[in-house]
Amino acid sequence: MFGLIVKMRSQPGKRDELIALLLRSTDAMPGCLNYVVARDLADLDAIWISEVWDGEASHKASLSLPEVQATIAEARPLIAGFDSSVRTEPVGGVGIS
Amino acid sequence: MFGLIVKMRSQPGKRDELIALLLRSTDAMPGCLNYVVARDLADLDAIWISEVWDGEASHKASLSLPEVQATIAEARPLIAGFDSSVRTEPVGGVGIS
Repeated sequence: MFGLIVKMRSQPGKRDELIALLLRSTDAMPGCLNYVVARDLADLDAIWISEVWDGEASHKASLSLPEVQATIAEARPLIAGFDSSVRTEPVGGVGIS
Repeated sequence: MFGLIVKMRSQPGKRDELIALLLRSTDAMPGCLNYVVARDLADLDAIWISEVWDGEASHKASLSLPEVQATIAEARPLIAGFDSSVRTEPVGGVGIS
Protein backbone atom coordinates (compact mmCIF):
# COMPACT_ATOMS: atom_id res chain seq x y z
CA MET A 1 0.00 0.00 0.00
CA PHE A 2 0.98 3.60 -0.55
CA GLY A 3 -0.08 6.55 1.59
CA LEU A 4 0.05 10.31 1.73
CA ILE A 5 -0.52 12.67 4.64
CA VAL A 6 -0.88 16.20 3.34
CA LYS A 7 -1.31 19.49 5.18
CA MET A 8 -2.88 21.98 2.79
CA ARG A 9 -3.56 25.65 3.51
CA SER A 10 -6.58 27.44 2.03
CA GLN A 11 -6.81 31.09 1.18
CA PRO A 12 -8.14 32.89 4.30
CA GLY A 13 -11.78 32.03 4.93
CA LYS A 14 -11.96 29.59 2.01
CA ARG A 15 -11.37 26.35 3.89
CA ASP A 16 -14.88 24.92 3.77
CA GLU A 17 -15.28 25.81 0.11
CA LEU A 18 -12.01 24.02 -0.65
CA ILE A 19 -13.02 20.99 1.45
CA ALA A 20 -16.30 20.67 -0.46
CA LEU A 21 -14.33 20.50 -3.71
CA LEU A 22 -11.87 17.96 -2.31
CA LEU A 23 -14.74 15.64 -1.33
CA ARG A 24 -16.59 15.94 -4.63
CA SER A 25 -14.80 13.30 -6.70
CA THR A 26 -13.50 10.88 -4.06
CA ASP A 27 -16.01 8.15 -5.02
CA ALA A 28 -14.54 7.76 -8.49
CA MET A 29 -10.90 6.99 -7.67
CA PRO A 30 -9.89 3.37 -8.48
CA GLY A 31 -7.45 1.89 -5.98
CA CYS A 32 -8.27 4.45 -3.29
CA LEU A 33 -8.72 2.50 -0.06
CA ASN A 34 -9.01 5.40 2.35
CA TYR A 35 -9.26 9.18 1.93
CA VAL A 36 -10.08 11.39 4.90
CA VAL A 37 -10.41 15.16 4.71
CA ALA A 38 -10.25 16.97 8.06
CA ARG A 39 -10.19 20.49 9.46
CA ASP A 40 -7.26 21.31 11.74
CA LEU A 41 -8.82 22.30 15.07
CA ALA A 42 -6.05 24.76 15.97
CA ASP A 43 -5.20 26.29 12.58
CA LEU A 44 -8.22 27.93 10.89
CA ASP A 45 -7.00 27.67 7.30
CA ALA A 46 -5.38 24.24 7.51
CA ILE A 47 -6.77 21.03 6.00
CA TRP A 48 -5.35 17.53 6.51
CA ILE A 49 -5.80 14.83 3.88
CA SER A 50 -4.90 11.26 4.83
CA GLU A 51 -4.83 8.86 1.89
CA VAL A 52 -4.33 5.11 1.47
CA TRP A 53 -3.98 3.60 -2.01
CA ASP A 54 -3.43 0.03 -3.17
CA GLY A 55 -0.17 1.28 -4.68
CA GLU A 56 1.57 4.45 -5.81
CA ALA A 57 0.51 3.79 -9.44
CA SER A 58 -3.19 4.17 -8.51
CA HIS A 59 -2.50 7.49 -6.84
CA LYS A 60 -0.59 8.76 -9.88
CA ALA A 61 -3.34 7.54 -12.21
CA SER A 62 -5.99 9.36 -10.16
CA LEU A 63 -4.35 12.68 -10.97
CA SER A 64 -5.20 12.12 -14.65
CA LEU A 65 -8.90 11.34 -14.11
CA PRO A 66 -11.11 13.97 -15.77
CA GLU A 67 -13.10 14.53 -12.54
CA VAL A 68 -9.91 14.99 -10.54
CA GLN A 69 -8.39 17.29 -13.18
CA ALA A 70 -11.53 19.44 -13.06
CA THR A 71 -11.40 19.55 -9.26
CA ILE A 72 -7.73 20.55 -9.27
CA ALA A 73 -8.46 23.39 -11.69
CA GLU A 74 -11.35 24.66 -9.56
CA ALA A 75 -9.47 24.22 -6.30
CA ARG A 76 -6.24 25.94 -7.32
CA PRO A 77 -7.39 29.55 -6.64
CA LEU A 78 -8.56 28.51 -3.16
CA ILE A 79 -5.22 26.93 -2.14
CA ALA A 80 -2.64 29.15 -0.43
CA GLY A 81 -0.05 26.38 -0.28
CA PHE A 82 1.08 23.05 1.13
CA ASP A 83 2.67 23.03 4.58
CA SER A 84 3.78 19.42 4.28
CA SER A 85 3.29 16.24 2.29
CA VAL A 86 4.54 12.96 3.69
CA ARG A 87 4.79 9.70 1.74
CA THR A 88 4.00 6.61 3.78
CA GLU A 89 3.57 2.87 3.61
CA PRO A 90 0.33 2.04 5.44
CA VAL A 91 0.56 -1.26 7.28
CA GLY A 92 -2.92 -1.88 8.66
CA GLY A 93 -5.69 -0.69 10.91
CA VAL A 94 -9.41 0.00 10.78
CA GLY A 95 -11.35 1.31 7.76
CA ILE A 96 -8.96 0.39 4.97
CA SER A 97 -11.58 -0.83 2.51
CA MET B 1 -16.28 13.44 14.31
CA PHE B 2 -12.94 13.81 16.06
CA GLY B 3 -9.55 13.02 14.56
CA LEU B 4 -5.90 12.73 15.45
CA ILE B 5 -2.84 12.67 13.20
CA VAL B 6 0.16 11.58 15.22
CA LYS B 7 3.82 11.26 14.25
CA MET B 8 5.47 8.85 16.66
CA ARG B 9 9.15 7.94 16.77
CA SER B 10 10.35 4.47 17.73
CA GLN B 11 13.60 3.61 19.39
CA PRO B 12 16.14 2.94 16.61
CA GLY B 13 15.33 -0.27 14.75
CA LYS B 14 12.19 -0.93 16.79
CA ARG B 15 9.62 0.51 14.38
CA ASP B 16 8.08 -2.73 13.13
CA GLU B 17 7.90 -4.18 16.63
CA LEU B 18 6.09 -1.02 17.79
CA ILE B 19 3.74 -1.09 14.78
CA ALA B 20 2.77 -4.70 15.54
CA LEU B 21 1.78 -3.63 19.05
CA LEU B 22 -0.18 -0.62 17.78
CA LEU B 23 -2.23 -2.84 15.48
CA ARG B 24 -2.94 -5.50 18.07
CA SER B 25 -5.99 -4.02 19.80
CA THR B 26 -7.53 -1.81 17.12
CA ASP B 27 -10.50 -4.16 16.61
CA ALA B 28 -11.80 -3.60 20.11
CA MET B 29 -12.17 0.19 20.19
CA PRO B 30 -15.82 1.37 20.29
CA GLY B 31 -16.45 4.53 18.28
CA CYS B 32 -13.28 4.15 16.22
CA LEU B 33 -14.25 4.78 12.59
CA ASN B 34 -10.79 4.79 11.04
CA TYR B 35 -7.31 4.00 12.34
CA VAL B 36 -4.40 3.74 9.94
CA VAL B 37 -0.84 2.92 11.00
CA ALA B 38 1.85 3.74 8.42
CA ARG B 39 5.61 3.74 8.07
CA ASP B 40 7.16 7.06 6.99
CA LEU B 41 8.99 6.31 3.73
CA ALA B 42 11.71 8.91 4.31
CA ASP B 43 12.25 8.66 8.07
CA LEU B 44 13.22 5.16 9.21
CA ASP B 45 12.01 5.40 12.79
CA ALA B 46 8.85 7.42 12.18
CA ILE B 47 5.30 6.07 12.35
CA TRP B 48 2.14 7.98 11.37
CA ILE B 49 -1.19 7.17 12.99
CA SER B 50 -4.33 8.70 11.43
CA GLU B 51 -7.45 8.27 13.55
CA VAL B 52 -11.14 9.08 13.10
CA TRP B 53 -13.56 8.70 16.03
CA ASP B 54 -17.29 9.34 16.33
CA GLY B 55 -16.37 11.92 18.96
CA GLU B 56 -13.58 12.90 21.34
CA ALA B 57 -15.27 11.03 24.20
CA SER B 58 -14.79 7.69 22.41
CA HIS B 59 -11.11 8.41 21.91
CA LYS B 60 -10.67 9.29 25.59
CA ALA B 61 -12.61 6.18 26.64
CA SER B 62 -10.40 3.97 24.47
CA LEU B 63 -7.37 4.95 26.53
CA SER B 64 -8.97 3.23 29.55
CA LEU B 65 -9.72 -0.06 27.82
CA PRO B 66 -7.75 -2.94 29.40
CA GLU B 67 -6.39 -4.07 26.01
CA VAL B 68 -5.24 -0.54 25.18
CA GLN B 69 -3.72 -0.03 28.63
CA ALA B 70 -1.78 -3.28 28.20
CA THR B 71 -0.59 -2.18 24.76
CA ILE B 72 0.53 1.23 26.06
CA ALA B 73 2.53 -0.44 28.82
CA GLU B 74 4.22 -2.80 26.37
CA ALA B 75 4.81 -0.09 23.77
CA ARG B 76 6.29 2.53 26.09
CA PRO B 77 9.90 1.18 26.07
CA LEU B 78 9.83 1.10 22.25
CA ILE B 79 8.74 4.75 21.85
CA ALA B 80 11.45 7.40 21.57
CA GLY B 81 8.94 10.25 21.44
CA PHE B 82 6.20 12.09 19.59
CA ASP B 83 7.20 14.52 16.84
CA SER B 84 3.70 15.94 16.47
CA SER B 85 0.08 15.31 17.38
CA VAL B 86 -2.62 17.26 15.58
CA ARG B 87 -6.29 17.37 16.62
CA THR B 88 -8.72 17.49 13.72
CA GLU B 89 -12.39 17.48 12.79
CA PRO B 90 -12.78 14.94 9.95
CA VAL B 91 -15.41 16.03 7.45
CA GLY B 92 -15.76 13.10 5.05
CA GLY B 93 -14.09 10.91 2.50
CA VAL B 94 -13.62 7.24 1.74
CA GLY B 95 -13.30 4.45 4.33
CA ILE B 96 -14.86 6.11 7.34
CA SER B 97 -16.84 3.11 8.57
